[in-house]
Order: sequence, then C-alpha cells, then structure tokens
Amino acid sequence: MTELKINFERLWQELEELARIGQDPRGGISRPSFSLADLEARKWLKEKIEAAGLTYRQDSAGNIFGRLAGKTPQVVMAGSHLDTVVNGGRFDGSVGVLSALECLRRIKEENLELYRTLELASFTDEEGNLVGDFLGSRAFTGQLKEEQLKNARTQFGPPLAEIVEKAGLKVENIPLAARERPEILAFLELHIEQGPILEEEEIPIGLVTTIAGKRYFQATFVGRSGHAGTIPMELRQDAFISLADFALRANQLVLRKYEDNTLTIGRVVLKPGSFSIIPGEADFTLDLRSQNRQELEELEKEILKLAREVAATRGLSFYQQLVDSTEPIVVPGSILNRLKALSERLGYDYRLISSGAGHDSQILAAICPVGLIFIPSPEGLSHVPDEKINPSDLEKGANLLLQALLELASV
Amino acid sequence: MTELKINFERLWQELEELARIGQDPRGGISRPSFSLADLEARKWLKEKIEAAGLTYRQDSAGNIFGRLAGKTPQVVMAGSHLDTVVNGGRFDGSVGVLSALECLRRIKEENLELYRTLELASFTDEEGNLVGDFLGSRAFTGQLKEEQLKNARTQFGPPLAEIVEKAGLKVENIPLAARERPEILAFLELHIEQGPILEEEEIPIGLVTTIAGKRYFQATFVGRSGHAGTIPMELRQDAFISLADFALRANQLVLRKYEDNTLTIGRVVLKPGSFSIIPGEADFTLDLRSQNRQELEELEKEILKLAREVAATRGLSFYQQLVDSTEPIVVPGSILNRLKALSERLGYDYRLISSGAGHDSQILAAICPVGLIFIPSPEGLSHVPDEKINPSDLEKGANLLLQALLELASV
Repeated sequence: MTELKINFERLWQELEELARIGQDPRGGISRPSFSLADLEARKWLKEKIEAAGLTYRQDSAGNIFGRLAGKTPQVVMAGSHLDTVVNGGRFDGSVGVLSALECLRRIKEENLELYRTLELASFTDEEGNLVGDFLGSRAFTGQLKEEQLKNARTQFGPPLAEIVEKAGLKVENIPLAARERPEILAFLELHIEQGPILEEEEIPIGLVTTIAGKRYFQATFVGRSGHAGTIPMELRQDAFISLADFALRANQLVLRKYEDNTLTIGRVVLKPGSFSIIPGEADFTLDLRSQNRQELEELEKEILKLAREVAATRGLSFYQQLVDSTEPIVVPGSILNRLKALSERLGYDYRLISSGAGHDSQILAAICPVGLIFIPSPEGLSHVPDEKINPSDLEKGANLLLQALLELASV
Repeated sequence: MTELKINFERLWQELEELARIGQDPRGGISRPSFSLADLEARKWLKEKIEAAGLTYRQDSAGNIFGRLAGKTPQVVMAGSHLDTVVNGGRFDGSVGVLSALECLRRIKEENLELYRTLELASFTDEEGNLVGDFLGSRAFTGQLKEEQLKNARTQFGPPLAEIVEKAGLKVENIPLAARERPEILAFLELHIEQGPILEEEEIPIGLVTTIAGKRYFQATFVGRSGHAGTIPMELRQDAFISLADFALRANQLVLRKYEDNTLTIGRVVLKPGSFSIIPGEADFTLDLRSQNRQELEELEKEILKLAREVAATRGLSFYQQLVDSTEPIVVPGSILNRLKALSERLGYDYRLISSGAGHDSQILAAICPVGLIFIPSPEGLSHVPDEKINPSDLEKGANLLLQALLELASV
C-alpha cells in the first residue's frame, strides 16, 4: 500500500503566503502576537482552516484550533505558533502550524475514518513579546492566573488588557482557556532546530529527547556614578566594570563546570548612560538554560552567588528578579519510540537531539505526552531575517508528522 | 583699604532662581541648550544683565555676553555656561556665569573706572547635548566649520539646523561667532571641581594647572547573534563577552600603566538586544582622558590595539569612530601666579589641582591666556541631581574672581 503523503507544493506555497504578512522594512518578519500583522495572519489562518473543511475555533487566550472530528471526542493535537520575534524569520513556529494544517487537510481529502479527533493548534505569543513566553499554551494548560495578567504591562508599553481587548479578547478571561480545553491525548510539534547540529551532520530529522528549562533574570549591579574626568580610576564603583567582571567569570564557570548548559546576557542598559559619566547602574538580562532540572538549580545558585561575590569584592550591590522560568522536560518513551519507528519505516535518517530552545510542546507536557520533531536550520540561524530551511527536510518532517498523527488517531 | 566684595546673598538668591528653570520631574535639572528650559534661562539671564546696567549681546552661536565698558575695547572675560546635562545639577556652569555677573555688577555699582573692558560670557551647549561638547566656545574661538554643522543630526533626533532655528539662529552662521569676537586678553572661569579632592582636603579653592584632553570614540564589537538556547557556549561569537573582556583588560591597563589617566565606558547597546538572543553586536562609548598630550596619544593607541587584539583572539571584528576630541592644556604661569598671589592676599587656603573634566576655558585657551578656579564638590558629585556646593566656598571663589578681574582690567 502507498502511504499517504502531504501535498508539499501546497504547504510551501502557504509558507510563502504567510511570509508576506508582517514583512518589516528593517528586515525579516515582525509579527508579535496581536500586532496588526498577527491579526492579519490569524484571519488568513482562519480562512485556510475553513477552506480545508476543518472546524475553526478560538479560545479565550486567542489560541486558534482547526478540528477534524473522529469517532471519539478525545483529541490528538499538532501545532506550534504563528507569532514571531521582531525582525524574525519565516519558519520558526510557522512550519509547525502549517504542516499540521496540511496533514489534517490531506486526511480530510482522503476521507480517512479516524477513531480519535485531530486538531491543529496555533498558540498565542509563544515568543513572549507581551508578558513572557508561552502565554497561549500556558493559559491552555492552566498554568496562568488572572492576577498575573490583569495589571501586567507589556514590554511595548501598553497594558496587556488594552492589547488583547483590541483583538476582541478580555484579559480576565485568558486563564479560562484551560476550562474550554477538550481532553488531549497527545501533542506533536514540528519545528526548526534553531541550532547547527542537524545541518552539520546532514541529517533531516531530529527527534527531541529533552527540552531545556530556563531561568530568566532581570538583574542589576548598583555602584556610584560620577564624572568620567574627575573620579580617579581607583576610587570608582563602576557598575559596568562589575558587570564585565561577572560576565567573564560566569561564562568561564559554565564552560568549565556546566557543559551543555548555557548562559546569555542579551541586553544591557547602563545608567545614566552617557559618554562622560561613570555608570552607577548596569541593568542586564540573564538567561540560564539546562536540560537537567537539578543542574539548572545548581547553575542558578552558583551564578547568583558569583554575582553577589563580584559585587561585594568591588563594593557594589547586586539585585536580581526572576522574570520567567520553565522546567526541563523529558519526552516520553511511548512517543519517542513511535517517532523512531515511523522514521525508519519512511526511510528518513534521524538522530536524537536535545532542544535548548523552549517550545509550546514543553508547556503542553504538563497535561499530556508530547513529541517534538526538528528539521535542520541551515547555519543554525533563527530569530533572524535570514532563517532558512531546506524544502526536502520540511517535506520529510511533515510526512513524519502525518504518519504519527494517523497512528495516534487510530485506536 | 577695604577690598571690594561681592554681594553673596544676591548671588545665592540668583542661583536659586535659576535652579527653578528646567526642573525635571525625574530628578534634578534638565536644561540642554535650546530646550524650552534653556530658552527660559537665556531670557532670565538677559533680564539680569540689563537690570545690572550691563550691555547685553548674543552672537551667532547663541553665546550670551554682558559688557561693562572700560577705557579700551580690549576685553577681559569671565564666564562659563548655563546648559546642563539631562537630570543634571544646579551648580555645574551656573556658578561661573552668575559669579561673573555678580562681579561685574558690583564693579558697576561702585562706579569703578576700568582701563579694560569686562565681559561676562555664557557659552552655548558646553555639555554637548547637541553635537559634541563646547559648541559655543568652539564657534567663538573659530574651531568649528560650517560643513561640520550643516547636516549634523543631534542625539535627540532632529537636525541641529532645526533646533537652532527655533532659537532664532541659523546653523550656517554659527561659525561667524568668531568674526564677531572682540579682542580677548584673558578668560577666567569659576567652576565646581566635579571631583572629591578639595572636599577631602578641606580646601576651599583649587587653582587649576592643567586641563585634561580627551578622545571620545563610538566603538563596536561585531560577532554573530544566535538563539541563546541552541548555540553551545564554545561555538559562540558573543559580542558582549568580547566587550566585557576588553573592558576589564583596558581598565587594568590604565590602572597599571597610565596613572592619573581615565577610561570610561558609559553607554552600551547590545544588538539585537533581547533576553534570548546572543548579542551579535556590542556598541559602546569609550572616553579616554589625560593631562598630558603625549600620554593621551599613547593611551589611545594602546587601548585601540587591545580592542583589536581581543576581537582577533575571539574571532570577532572591532570598529571605532572618533566622535570628539580635545587637547590637554597647561594654564599659563602669568595667570596662575596672579591667582595664587590674590588667594594669599585674601587669606584663602588653596591648592594646585588638575582638571579631568573639560571646560570652556580649555577651548578659550586657543585664543588667550586662561585661568580656571575650582570650588569643592561635596562627595565629588556632578552631573547628577544631588550636585552640591558649600556657600562659603562659593563666596571665596567669587571674591577671588572679582579681584582677578579687577587686576586684569587695570593696566
């Protein structure tokens, strides 16, 4: 028997259509959740879902679903997100949603009888452009509380309440998404690797075994500002020099003692922030990640201790605030073994891989078994305008997703 | 004979009046040149000059003068500036302008006959809020060219031409200030120290012997950005880590080898500047200062070489652009000896001191002998809302200025 395959030309065509929504004159695609571009993409997806004969639904968190009913209402779900970082690429998230759409559409076209119900999902604000990553999937899985959202300000300035209202939602109803949720049996996500490993090894499919947990801190060294020309070097409490000292030592510590973990300082603001003034304050973001829960805890402790030590040695103060955190997850063997077996049956070369980036599937893991399939990211590029994929890898990834959905939806 | 003294209560009162102009709700005083607050301060100064019976004049660069004519048109000048940094203090610049005003007013009140003409001066944009420090005094001394200004953009955004036009000036005429200049025989400036030395030694008067020259660079390390979770630490070209490495080494180099010189990194911008993205670019300001011309040149060379080495070692690129520079100056013995003798005659304790900060007098040194008198800055604070002075120090400084002007204006 010939196995069912996706219509790759149609999938590729739709990725190109979607990439035209939110093009940023400064480069790439800027489609943060509930921006005008995102609202346009949501409308586009709704039309695609309905044109495919699937049942469209949006929940209280703005998550979008397309349903293909089976004999039982229990749902096997696949999806990802359509939002992007500012000046992001065209594949992060999109390949997962549009591949799921294509899978369900092909199954519908063939009038295949399903025992279980299939749903594609597109989750709100995976990228955390508003108030932290995974707003939609956190709401969907009951991991958000109204108190966290009601007075939340977004990094763009306006309160979350105002932004979601323009999209026809109510901030106080976002946590209700969990109550509206059907019973979910499994969640599958196809995503770009966002790293260089698969490309370097020329392997089209990565089967994810663990997803890194992370700690996001907003942190500050506070020293003493002063005139750059009049305070001798040896009398300074320069907040930036403390940050530089900390950054170098922390980097070395992770390289030496926490192999496979990462530490990133991605944003720095010095205050007052002028050519001729010694910085009295150095605000910075600190991103710690690990595939292992215990290591993540130790890393966090040791890094914060180091920061306090650097501050104490140099006569400054150090403050930090936890902004966001996720826990590492392990993909269940039941799903992983099925994906291995299917890859072998389809003749696709694959490798096991861990994910340093967070994904909606990591959040879904709180309520059901999840699986995460990677396709290569040429040059390891992601979250940048130059994000790429090889069409043949996507075709394999989407066909693997299709077969996995078919299996999970039968008996 | 009783020596002529300033009216200190009046001077203090006027400092308080001026401090009410440009109060910033975020703290201190924000009175950058040609802001609404600065225009108000200019109007206020004009009224004070005219009320004192002095002749008001504004030149093509917006520098303001108040003249007390002597028998000859050659001018002995004293002054400073009324503009402030954003969220600055109430004394930096202001004490020099208002003390000069008080000195001329007292001489006028006593109807003292002068051989030479006295002028007070308030120079435009000493703080460089628009397009680099000393716009007014550079124009006044013929150190600015029209080409540098015509298409200049200010750090606030709008072109310089637009900003000065709102103040009734024309950008192409700014360099003409040098042609309108009378013959200047000497320039004296009273200023706060902006450092901790005089306060620590409890000495009310600092007689400046040298003023530091500086180099302002806008510089960048360029590496490669990437996802914080997916690029292993050892494969990164993290622009911030290179900057941290450079900053620490450069700091140590100055401390070890260039005593009394300074290096300051006051502003840092990481790009793209997000929690979860390895910075591909680290833009920063670099401020180098020295009292010695040759040392400044060597320091500049060695620091830039170090930056290139750090970049090369880590596989990144380094770029820099010179944004502004001034040369160190030595205060002429003729002026310094006169100020010493007068301080002794007045019974004021003084010490010789060097200035790490730049001053209008440094720019005026290109056309005439200059003198610079410091009064203590409690806690070394300057360019901050908390900037302070002791009234008794100001009284001494202003009386020293008065005696020096009287001497220089007679024969």
